[in-house]
Amino acid sequence: MTTLSPNGAVRRATMNDVARLAGVSIKTVSRVVNDEVGVHPATAERVLAAIDQLGFRRNLSARNLRRGSSTGAVGLVLEDVANPFYSGVTRAVEETSRLRGRQVITGSSDEDPNRERELALDFCSRRVDGLLIVPAGSQHAYLVPEMRAGTPVVFLDRPAGDIAADTVLVDNVGGTAAAVAHLVAHGHRKIAFLGDAPDIFTAAERLRGYREGCVRAGIGPHEDLVVMGPHDAASVAAALRSLADRATAVVTGNNRITVHAVRALAGWTRRPALVGFDDFELADLLSPPVTVIAHDASALGRAAADLLYARLDGDTGPPKRVVLPVRLVARGSGETSP
Amino acid sequence: MTTLSPNGAVRRATMNDVARLAGVSIKTVSRVVNDEVGVHPATAERVLAAIDQLGFRRNLSARNLRRGSSTGAVGLVLEDVANPFYSGVTRAVEETSRLRGRQVITGSSDEDPNRERELALDFCSRRVDGLLIVPAGSQHAYLVPEMRAGTPVVFLDRPAGDIAADTVLVDNVGGTAAAVAHLVAHGHRKIAFLGDAPDIFTAAERLRGYREGCVRAGIGPHEDLVVMGPHDAASVAAALRSLADRATAVVTGNNRITVHAVRALAGWTRRPALVGFDDFELADLLSPPVTVIAHDASALGRAAADLLYARLDGDTGPPKRVVLPVRLVARGSGETSP
Repeated sequence: MTTLSPNGAVRRATMNDVARLAGVSIKTVSRVVNDEVGVHPATAERVLAAIDQLGFRRNLSARNLRRGSSTGAVGLVLEDVANPFYSGVTRAVEETSRLRGRQVITGSSDEDPNRERELALDFCSRRVDGLLIVPAGSQHAYLVPEMRAGTPVVFLDRPAGDIAADTVLVDNVGGTAAAVAHLVAHGHRKIAFLGDAPDIFTAAERLRGYREGCVRAGIGPHEDLVVMGPHDAASVAAALRSLADRATAVVTGNNRITVHAVRALAGWTRRPALVGFDDFELADLLSPPVTVIAHDASALGRAAADLLYARLDGDTGPPKRVVLPVRLVARGSGETSP
Repeated sequence: MTTLSPNGAVRRATMNDVARLAGVSIKTVSRVVNDEVGVHPATAERVLAAIDQLGFRRNLSARNLRRGSSTGAVGLVLEDVANPFYSGVTRAVEETSRLRGRQVITGSSDEDPNRERELALDFCSRRVDGLLIVPAGSQHAYLVPEMRAGTPVVFLDRPAGDIAADTVLVDNVGGTAAAVAHLVAHGHRKIAFLGDAPDIFTAAERLRGYREGCVRAGIGPHEDLVVMGPHDAASVAAALRSLADRATAVVTGNNRITVHAVRALAGWTRRPALVGFDDFELADLLSPPVTVIAHDASALGRAAADLLYARLDGDTGPPKRVVLPVRLVARGSGETSP
């Protein structure tokens, strides 16, 4: 067993340290590190020994900068890596990237546009080969210099705000419209919608689908049955209580809201019918099993990664927009009578 | 709206390109990029204009290498980012790191030691300030040069194989021993254990806890009631069927196995009692609600990140080992009679 202090060296070795130890100039160290010609073999040996002794690390990025080659990584900016939907996306991006010999660097924006920008630009300064972004903000002109410099950017789950770029979405409008139609087919007329904050693209689109579904069925929409913004157990429970006397069915706008709703409704004797956007693990084993608008996080991640790698392979066509289909999975919670 | 081809430039701009366009030497470009003295202001202006025009990106890593300062990122090597347990860990590491102004770079090893090594060294070549590793392999001497060079490494969930390093674990042995004691208290004597592959540290430790619990209760252990390695729905279902006539209770070794077991047992009329290692979302809403050995993914991620940042703050003490407590959460599935 090799025992060592985890932080034996309190400071990183620099090129200067290597040069001093080897008794050569920094330029010589640089030449050796970068495999350049013009260094005497004996000198190179001395430099390599110094590097070894100091644990000096080759600077991959510097090498790639010089050579214009791949850095072997793509950046992925998510909303929240702990949300199972996004971990499914991450996993798919990782798998596609592995086949292309690339690592995935991730970060969570937490719906903060400043943090999204900070993450994206940090990834660029680490010289990723491309960026995949679930945008938190609606202004993306900050990416234009990066795109111009040859870094492809693909937006997923939500489109870019003010630039044209490759985008992969799911059919949000079609999904909630189908949820309403399904509930109407089971006799419901007073259908509520519980969505995320309305400035989030998917929340606004799903609200639009809810409204379209209501109009198509000739039942409204009932704007007084729309609650946008509840995001934790308490606010979802409060919203459901406020709707209890007025609605016989509820469409929830994402997996987090659905899970909070299922928990809030657990004790109720007369539950509203429920259709949730996004499938989630164990939805089929709950009582009643939860009817959902399912779409495939893996498919979303794969489609976005495929677009990115097509760009890296030289596709210079106009920006593409891919919309993935959704499907209603009837399990029980959405098939009860009013 | 700015419209642009996502891949307008097919190749990255290099320092050479910048030098050519500005009509200066590469050394001058390098001086400007690195804020070095000795460049005439007018020349610097010309270089900056060329950089701007070409979309040339400053090389953060090269700058940091030269200055010996932070690169603003830590690397996190996980087993599988799509496993909700690890997404909880990731999230906690992200949150702690954000308070320290650092990004988190993640990757999934998939229990492949080669991939763990590849990811860890790739992160080092990107000059992360530190590494957090859920090890897949048992040989970690490859990290010694990095540690010697001043990159602190913390292992989490599982210890390093052959080096001494900071480590954060949960009380695996105590957890399964408590699960067995709990089932024994409810009258069970024939208790099975369904664990992960036995070469995985946590799986081996949890098996050890199971055995200790059985010995302490004077009921074995029943080695014929131990099944190690089932990892998907089909193999977990098959293992449960094979145990059906012989065991009245089952301890499952991790959240994935528990979820597969819950699904497999859904149709059974006479179910074995069940205690699962790891809590999971909605466990309390299943029928019956699932009794678990709970521990806190966030606490694990936070403790590991805290150790790492203590090292970055200059802590040079000997390697630490932190073992986080677990607790049994009785919900129903583990409190049925034989």
